Amino acid sequence: MSMFVSLGEVLLRLSAPGAARLTQATSMDVSYGGSEANIAAALASWGISAAHVTVLPKNELGQTAVASLRSFSIDTAHIQRAEGRMGIYFLEHGHHVRSPKVVYDRYHSAFALDPLQFDWETILAGAKWFHWSGITPAISAAAATACKNAIAVARRKGVRVSADINYRRVLWQYGKKPTDMLPELVSQSDMIMGAPADVENCLGISAPPRATFAEVCELVQRQFPSVRVFVNSVRTSHHASHQQLQGFWYENKTLFQSKNHDIEPIVDRIGSGDALMAGLVYSQLHHKSPQETISFAAAAAVFKHSVPGDVLVADVSEIEAVANDQATGKLLR
Amino acid sequence: MSMFVSLGEVLLRLSAPGAARLTQATSMDVSYGGSEANIAAALASWGISAAHVTVLPKNELGQTAVASLRSFSIDTAHIQRAEGRMGIYFLEHGHHVRSPKVVYDRYHSAFALDPLQFDWETILAGAKWFHWSGITPAISAAAATACKNAIAVARRKGVRVSADINYRRVLWQYGKKPTDMLPELVSQSDMIMGAPADVENCLGISAPPRATFAEVCELVQRQFPSVRVFVNSVRTSHHASHQQLQGFWYENKTLFQSKNHDIEPIVDRIGSGDALMAGLVYSQLHHKSPQETISFAAAAAVFKHSVPGDVLVADVSEIEAVANDQATGKLLR
Amino acid sequence: MSMFVSLGEVLLRLSAPGAARLTQATSMDVSYGGSEANIAAALASWGISAAHVTVLPKNELGQTAVASLRSFSIDTAHIQRAEGRMGIYFLEHGHHVRSPKVVYDRYHSAFALDPLQFDWETILAGAKWFHWSGITPAISAAAATACKNAIAVARRKGVRVSADINYRRVLWQYGKKPTDMLPELVSQSDMIMGAPADVENCLGISAPPRATFAEVCELVQRQFPSVRVFVNSVRTSHHASHQQLQGFWYENKTLFQSKNHDIEPIVDRIGSGDALMAGLVYSQLHHKSPQETISFAAAAAVFKHSVPGDVLVADVSEIEAVANDQATGKLLR
Amino acid sequence: MSMFVSLGEVLLRLSAPGAARLTQATSMDVSYGGSEANIAAALASWGISAAHVTVLPKNELGQTAVASLRSFSIDTAHIQRAEGRMGIYFLEHGHHVRSPKVVYDRYHSAFALDPLQFDWETILAGAKWFHWSGITPAISAAAATACKNAIAVARRKGVRVSADINYRRVLWQYGKKPTDMLPELVSQSDMIMGAPADVENCLGISAPPRATFAEVCELVQRQFPSVRVFVNSVRTSHHASHQQLQGFWYENKTLFQSKNHDIEPIVDRIGSGDALMAGLVYSQLHHKSPQETISFAAAAAVFKHSVPGDVLVADVSEIEAVANDQATGKLLR
Amino acid sequence: MSMFVSLGEVLLRLSAPGAARLTQATSMDVSYGGSEANIAAALASWGISAAHVTVLPKNELGQTAVASLRSFSIDTAHIQRAEGRMGIYFLEHGHHVRSPKVVYDRYHSAFALDPLQFDWETILAGAKWFHWSGITPAISAAAATACKNAIAVARRKGVRVSADINYRRVLWQYGKKPTDMLPELVSQSDMIMGAPADVENCLGISAPPRATFAEVCELVQRQFPSVRVFVNSVRTSHHASHQQLQGFWYENKTLFQSKNHDIEPIVDRIGSGDALMAGLVYSQLHHKSPQETISFAAAAAVFKHSVPGDVLVADVSEIEAVANDQATGKLLR
Amino acid sequence: MSMFVSLGEVLLRLSAPGAARLTQATSMDVSYGGSEANIAAALASWGISAAHVTVLPKNELGQTAVASLRSFSIDTAHIQRAEGRMGIYFLEHGHHVRSPKVVYDRYHSAFALDPLQFDWETILAGAKWFHWSGITPAISAAAATACKNAIAVARRKGVRVSADINYRRVLWQYGKKPTDMLPELVSQSDMIMGAPADVENCLGISAPPRATFAEVCELVQRQFPSVRVFVNSVRTSHHASHQQLQGFWYENKTLFQSKNHDIEPIVDRIGSGDALMAGLVYSQLHHKSPQETISFAAAAAVFKHSVPGDVLVADVSEIEAVANDQATGKLLR
Repeated sequence: MSMFVSLGEVLLRLSAPGAARLTQATSMDVSYGGSEANIAAALASWGISAAHVTVLPKNELGQTAVASLRSFSIDTAHIQRAEGRMGIYFLEHGHHVRSPKVVYDRYHSAFALDPLQFDWETILAGAKWFHWSGITPAISAAAATACKNAIAVARRKGVRVSADINYRRVLWQYGKKPTDMLPELVSQSDMIMGAPADVENCLGISAPPRATFAEVCELVQRQFPSVRVFVNSVRTSHHASHQQLQGFWYENKTLFQSKNHDIEPIVDRIGSGDALMAGLVYSQLHHKSPQETISFAAAAAVFKHSVPGDVLVADVSEIEAVANDQATGKLLR
Repeated sequence: MSMFVSLGEVLLRLSAPGAARLTQATSMDVSYGGSEANIAAALASWGISAAHVTVLPKNELGQTAVASLRSFSIDTAHIQRAEGRMGIYFLEHGHHVRSPKVVYDRYHSAFALDPLQFDWETILAGAKWFHWSGITPAISAAAATACKNAIAVARRKGVRVSADINYRRVLWQYGKKPTDMLPELVSQSDMIMGAPADVENCLGISAPPRATFAEVCELVQRQFPSVRVFVNSVRTSHHASHQQLQGFWYENKTLFQSKNHDIEPIVDRIGSGDALMAGLVYSQLHHKSPQETISFAAAAAVFKHSVPGDVLVADVSEIEAVANDQATGKLLR
Repeated sequence: MSMFVSLGEVLLRLSAPGAARLTQATSMDVSYGGSEANIAAALASWGISAAHVTVLPKNELGQTAVASLRSFSIDTAHIQRAEGRMGIYFLEHGHHVRSPKVVYDRYHSAFALDPLQFDWETILAGAKWFHWSGITPAISAAAATACKNAIAVARRKGVRVSADINYRRVLWQYGKKPTDMLPELVSQSDMIMGAPADVENCLGISAPPRATFAEVCELVQRQFPSVRVFVNSVRTSHHASHQQLQGFWYENKTLFQSKNHDIEPIVDRIGSGDALMAGLVYSQLHHKSPQETISFAAAAAVFKHSVPGDVLVADVSEIEAVANDQATGKLLR
Repeated sequence: MSMFVSLGEVLLRLSAPGAARLTQATSMDVSYGGSEANIAAALASWGISAAHVTVLPKNELGQTAVASLRSFSIDTAHIQRAEGRMGIYFLEHGHHVRSPKVVYDRYHSAFALDPLQFDWETILAGAKWFHWSGITPAISAAAATACKNAIAVARRKGVRVSADINYRRVLWQYGKKPTDMLPELVSQSDMIMGAPADVENCLGISAPPRATFAEVCELVQRQFPSVRVFVNSVRTSHHASHQQLQGFWYENKTLFQSKNHDIEPIVDRIGSGDALMAGLVYSQLHHKSPQETISFAAAAAVFKHSVPGDVLVADVSEIEAVANDQATGKLLR
Repeated sequence: MSMFVSLGEVLLRLSAPGAARLTQATSMDVSYGGSEANIAAALASWGISAAHVTVLPKNELGQTAVASLRSFSIDTAHIQRAEGRMGIYFLEHGHHVRSPKVVYDRYHSAFALDPLQFDWETILAGAKWFHWSGITPAISAAAATACKNAIAVARRKGVRVSADINYRRVLWQYGKKPTDMLPELVSQSDMIMGAPADVENCLGISAPPRATFAEVCELVQRQFPSVRVFVNSVRTSHHASHQQLQGFWYENKTLFQSKNHDIEPIVDRIGSGDALMAGLVYSQLHHKSPQETISFAAAAAVFKHSVPGDVLVADVSEIEAVANDQATGKLLR
Repeated sequence: MSMFVSLGEVLLRLSAPGAARLTQATSMDVSYGGSEANIAAALASWGISAAHVTVLPKNELGQTAVASLRSFSIDTAHIQRAEGRMGIYFLEHGHHVRSPKVVYDRYHSAFALDPLQFDWETILAGAKWFHWSGITPAISAAAATACKNAIAVARRKGVRVSADINYRRVLWQYGKKPTDMLPELVSQSDMIMGAPADVENCLGISAPPRATFAEVCELVQRQFPSVRVFVNSVRTSHHASHQQLQGFWYENKTLFQSKNHDIEPIVDRIGSGDALMAGLVYSQLHHKSPQETISFAAAAAVFKHSVPGDVLVADVSEIEAVANDQATGKLLR
């Protein structure tokens, strides 16, 4: 009986320590994360009960992934353990002109292989929010089906459904295109996060060349009337250590936007989109206005850049300080 | 027979390594420091003989604290070992919007508990300078008494007395308010460092709303005529990795000020106030002018931000380069 | 049969980890490098077969140095092992006002002591490029002779000869001055890299006070007609974490220059001159124009600042992105 | 609704890494443990639902302690957060003639200070086993009362009650002696673990000089008829790296004993008594015979010596292999 | 033109540091190895030119694997880079009753997937020895074919062929049984290493219940007359930190055996079989007698237990000291 | 005014971490030590005021060496700083059949080069004991002279003089043989430590083939009547992790001997001879009997094997426990 439920793969993250390149690392830092689970972790730390649903291998790595999620106070009761391998990603942090780099090694994972028979009626009992991302239907037909089943049950129960449509070209390897799978899933969702390019790649909706974000949202809404809210975060990347980030929320023909935050230096940018989504869910579950919501969410994304690992480890008050322009970095005693 | 003598608690510092948050740290870096001892350490490295007076527990931690002070060339002959625990502080470094954070665990320490019977006549024999801070009288009545005794002997012997009045609200737990204890101590001191807010909290002197620093100094001097010099450092904090720092020296109705230094990036800001004080003492003992003094002191504080640990580890020439705007960061071979 | 051949000492580099000062380090990071070998390493990683020629001691350190060079795909077949010690340098990274610092411990090394009888006819068979630096003739008379022999054979075979004339005052300890040794070596070289000050110190050519770089080049060329190309990189150092770098190429009475790159933050600036030289050689061996050459070379030097260690570890495409102003630091998946 | 419930303090463990002495450590490894929580952790990993009850401070350390317990699958729902500090212990591992050493810094902890109002009716609902140790009543009067309340409710509900009576002289600092507090608690318990010396120190029962363990047990049983089972583990310590361990179970006038296991080398002996207790509880909840129980429990204690940290991290099958003399150390693939 | 050529997969090894269990590791140590490449590495360090043939992925991990092999002086010119992933194994070291544990994650690797078209005529030109193991035909049909092709060319060229027939049940996943594939490969080999159980599982030859090793060898030789030498190493495992190892060499109806070495403590037992094989090849290429050969080879295997990583890093003289019972562990200066 | 004064070189020790071989180390652990300073460090920790006399380079390494000695409570007031390099030794720990290995890099050090004009009258004022070793006269003629001067002053002042005659063949590189230098130094000493082989190599006294230690001592005494006490420690080395050690004390025609201690496992054997000498000095300064002295000294040497670094870090009570066979390795709380 968790308020928030997410579905998605959890990966072992092996990152080159400090400023080392992947080819220079003589050890790798170990952590676990995944776009959807990262959101559950942040929410659970903020007092929103959160369950994550996934499939993990029956070995020490799968066991450690579960322990990691539990340490973030995530309800792991619905996680299945199966044959197959642990998905892995190798991470090199970026510095100045050197981009951060992810090397995926996630094919053939337990999550991709498993029939994924989850009892969504039980899992979603009492839930207020269900979240999925475009990564799951990209992984395998079975994963896409699990996602579709979850959305259908959520919809029937009146659970709000959000999606990060997140187009990752390299992941679509099982013979389907995003436009084969995502439209059906999006058509049952309430809120989607994505850039205009994602809309084109995942939903097949091409906006005119100079369309504004609002115009793109209108186009989507015409085709997917269930979607009431569109979210986007725009990152301006000067170099790997200096970026800007601004959040946008479109609802009811109105565009709300956060401050365009300057971010420098950057400790770890992985998971900042997930932090933004966690901020959205948190604010909405606390009945905040669209403006408050997008401000808090963008601040969460900004704060994530200062925290190592996939997960936003931060108090609500720390995020609010950023949202309210009070994060002056003074020593706290 | 040290030229400089300081009194104050020494803490075990346990800091989360690198950019880790305290809740993420699987190991902690170990070092030792304390506001007053940090000053002695810097001075000793610059050739000023320096003794530090404190009480440390009779266990391995106390023993290691002594060894650490000795490694900085501090005379530890007057340190007492007693029952009670080692005061500890846990440190998380800050990055960008994430503030650095100190979690204190220093109550019930050997320093707070002990009767603190020091033989100040012997300790201060031949000394030129005695330094105390507002932390000591905040810790316990016994500590406040020790401080008072030391100041009295110093005054009698013509030893110059400085204080960092350093208001830390959370430390005053034994039933006294700063204004109960500090005025008597300040009334016997020659130089104090503090911001107008410290003056209000510690000495009970409220300046008018828009009073300048000079006006505040005048108010204090009227009440505490022994105090001939007032020092303040003003930090402008843009975020945890970008700050500015400027030093002020008020004496004889004249205000001297350093350059307002830009500091970015920041390795470790702990102890920068102590570095400034060390710079003051060093310059004064070398008979520098007020302008030279505050310039060198502010440069010492700025340099400290680039050095890990509580203690300013730097050569005089490195500080002078900053004071003279010659610290261009060129590779030294 | 390597396309590129370099001659020079390889040092054990022991660097204080992270932001620690040398006096604070309880461990040292181990790597191996040397101005000339760093160039060979970068070239080999870019597909240019490269051999490095040196003398290393007959102990575990010499053996590990060879293994390190081999791991960079350098041909080590011509390296000699001899009595004598391993040259060492201790490195402290810089931060903001704190300069990076190198403590050399390289006297009496196997490279300096050895008679250095290399069979240059064999070593340079089939080569296109030979590189030496001003460090080698500074180390010992024997080393200077080896350098002279190599240049003579290279010249005879039509191998292009470049030199980084790199004046390091502290290294000239065996009784000769740079102007005793370098003119003869430069007089047989095709391309030299150096600043006007190096030209004065090493070649004894004093330019008039406000001479431009082009004018200095002209002066040199009059005296050393074999030298057709002059290269210089100009570093503007704001502080240890923020610098600028611009490359210059003078040939045929024409000056070509790269963009003046802003570099902040800086991971490791050691070897950036070597990276620039590697970029020059790579571009020239690929028949690039002077403008393309200096742009690529400066970009290589800039990229080096983001990579730990002496050696530029980077793909050609990563350098090109910097040269073409496309290194926006976006996450690569 | 956990099958197993334990009550007791959780400490931050800071251990000197590798073979370093505490005075040599420049970093400390961080983990969390406590005699009673260690048992819950092992049981939870073996599929016995387990809740741990404690009080932890309202700061980052308390938060990380909860996360650690959760990562071991312990139900932390009944843990209270309060003012006060985190209890700490510093650990130095032993080697050969050098003993392992614990420096406690646990006074004034949140657990000791708090009124500890736990709702035992709810906590113990559905439980089969409650465990306490002699450490809790040693810490403070409030802690002793909490322990008494828990035992009373457990007894009323028919929950089996075990205790490790564990005499630690240094902990009894609040004015009571063990014999003031423990007899009442033991008189309501079903099973106690302790050596004859603990029986004397904690229960005030002096056995005749050469009494056997069975005779001591008989004496205790006469005075505390509720106690049906007595357990003891006997360690023969050759040196810090070579020890022997044998378990004893006395019930119904019959003594059962495990093999006397040889243990060499030793990775970490902390928590081996807790591992033994976990083995007892696991076996009893699976209705094993006394002989099987003590054999499995001793094997668990032996295995613990090979695992770093306070907690026995091991599969049931790994323990069974030790119990059945099949732990030959062959490589498992 | 290497004297020794090996074929086989190279894996990324990620090992839990120190005594940590896999589930406890917050970082993993990185190295690279593989049964056949480990042999090439040891031989190359002993002055036998050695090439290793394999397929590695076109990513940073594959690139680092090549660099690692090169650092061991292995000729990597014939290594192919292809699509597919890097095979990985996770390693937990054992201690006392806790066995070392390997978790494989090697399916779908570039080595398994690739058509593996190697030009064996060129690769084996001038070679004296070719080595393969039972792992390669277990991985995929393509890998088995590559192995068969290599053996055929080697045989034709008079290159000696050895095999470690190494039965690993879990690896045979592509539909073939060892007895489908190995007999043909063994029938073209000169020397095989394996235990009687391997002979049964891989070659389908069941010896009578109490057959001696010599009798088993005779049975094999009858069926595979090309095989002139049989080698076996017998490990007696007391526990994970104390084992014994003895080598056996059967040739010409005569059994030669090494001393039965006691090994305690054990640093890293991975690769000890490969070290033994390297010792065999080295001794045979130096025309040693069977007795000298098996003594040196067993000593190499014993020494490997004291060296971290997959590869035997040791001088010939260090191995000879063990073989001659002179490895007393005295400090070498 | 220190009770104990020692003279000798201090080296930077760079050791491969954990079980890594020197060729495998990617970092080196940093510490400082030297045979004579190690003795001063142990004595200072036991409450004997101790000064160490040496020459260290004027760079960061020399400065850190001084800080290290100070952290051990050694009086460093008489240490000179000069030109020249820091002597270094690289250390690889041994395991089982793999011997520990030291690679010296100590030629051309500041200690060897410097004229070494120490004011021995002042340094030895009030001293009770002066110690030198055979390493110092081996390093350079200047060092031998400094040693001779110190001994002469000590003798004149009635300070007891001990020497560890410690023959290290590789160090004698300046044209003198031990027998040229040592006899004169020994002829002014009171106590020497050394094995019969050292006596032969250093003093030129060949004992008959099967002479007992007592007979060798008699031979020496005949030639060097000032020497009243001869000490020797006999190490039986089974392998690098298992050794035995026994101490011998010959005085007044009587041989006293310690228990023959079994040592397994071994953490770090460097400095165990120095620990033995420290134990001798401590016991003699406390007027212990020869039997007590050699027992305590051997126990100190044994304990050293369990402590990382050059220096015996241990309490007197820990050594006494070993001497009295009470070091059972039980957990100390």
